[in-house]
Amino acid sequence: MAYSQSLNELISALSKLPGVGRKSAQRIAYHIVTSEKDYVKSLADAIMLARERTNYCAVCNDMTEDEICPICLSPKRDRSVICVVAEPKDVLAIEKTKEYKGLYHVLGGLISPMDGIGPEDISVSKLIGRITPEVTEVILATGLNVEGETTAMYIARMLSPLGVKTSRIAMGIPAGSELEYADEATIANALEGRREI
Amino acid sequence: MAYSQSLNELISALSKLPGVGRKSAQRIAYHIVTSEKDYVKSLADAIMLARERTNYCAVCNDMTEDEICPICLSPKRDRSVICVVAEPKDVLAIEKTKEYKGLYHVLGGLISPMDGIGPEDISVSKLIGRITPEVTEVILATGLNVEGETTAMYIARMLSPLGVKTSRIAMGIPAGSELEYADEATIANALEGRREI
Repeated sequence: MAYSQSLNELISALSKLPGVGRKSAQRIAYHIVTSEKDYVKSLADAIMLARERTNYCAVCNDMTEDEICPICLSPKRDRSVICVVAEPKDVLAIEKTKEYKGLYHVLGGLISPMDGIGPEDISVSKLIGRITPEVTEVILATGLNVEGETTAMYIARMLSPLGVKTSRIAMGIPAGSELEYADEATIANALEGRREI
Repeated sequence: MAYSQSLNELISALSKLPGVGRKSAQRIAYHIVTSEKDYVKSLADAIMLARERTNYCAVCNDMTEDEICPICLSPKRDRSVICVVAEPKDVLAIEKTKEYKGLYHVLGGLISPMDGIGPEDISVSKLIGRITPEVTEVILATGLNVEGETTAMYIARMLSPLGVKTSRIAMGIPAGSELEYADEATIANALEGRREI
């Protein structure tokens, strides 16, 4: 048996998913064509439904099934702090800590001149429009890499005339990690960012 | 952001795929809801289409998009040999070697009293019905484990009154492998199955 055309097409569609190589795609495709039709239909429906229902929040750009996301609508969140992140998955990562009670702003990318992504391609002006007198702090929680740093510096500069406090998440040694495995830049930053105990 | 309902449902549907854990399912689901709608639709369509088009060959039970599979229909295949395997994926594995030119018979499982699978639950009587005078050899290529051996022995016994030659694939040391990593049963079988050079 050579793969049939429909199976081949399924394998190549599955291979495009993140973390799914050709071998995994073959195994998943084989599983799909040998499974109950009802189960396969429920899988295909779940894919379409999740995509169709997912919008971006009109306020913060986070993913949501509604016009405005539950965080922006929640009366329990602290409206004086906005945490700026690159992608919706970063919101999820911060929410998991259960430590942060403020609002978010999802940029939808990071400034990256190498990839032709400038400040106008990410949601900076919308963020500036959200800085009302109620907002006292903007936390820049973009990644600690070149793009994340560039974007944080740019936003900090844009916000400075507005008189709002801007802060940057700390770079340091990860929790549970040993000094010997950290790179020099991380150790240098951990030393510089030391706090009295 | 907590996951929305449709995203949660997608994650749990994806988690049921072979080799996809919860973390991978989250990553794939995130990729799906943030991708172009056209791409997502093509993925869902490929899943449904592959499942709907896949039948089992009326002759050999291999997976096919047609009533009878291309191997059974091919005038180039040697009709005097039938290779018996457990699953369609075994046909694929043997076809990849490009060494075998005969026909196949897919049992659709193996005898396993522990799992309540008896000879009547796999395609044995259909195999017996295929043993015409044209067929001179049946190769039993079920796995070298308890179920595979039991099934091979059972089929050999059923075929013996028909006067057709039955053979069993060789157990031995895998190609490229070292003796020290092989288990005792494999080494014992490799010695017993030794061939003059």
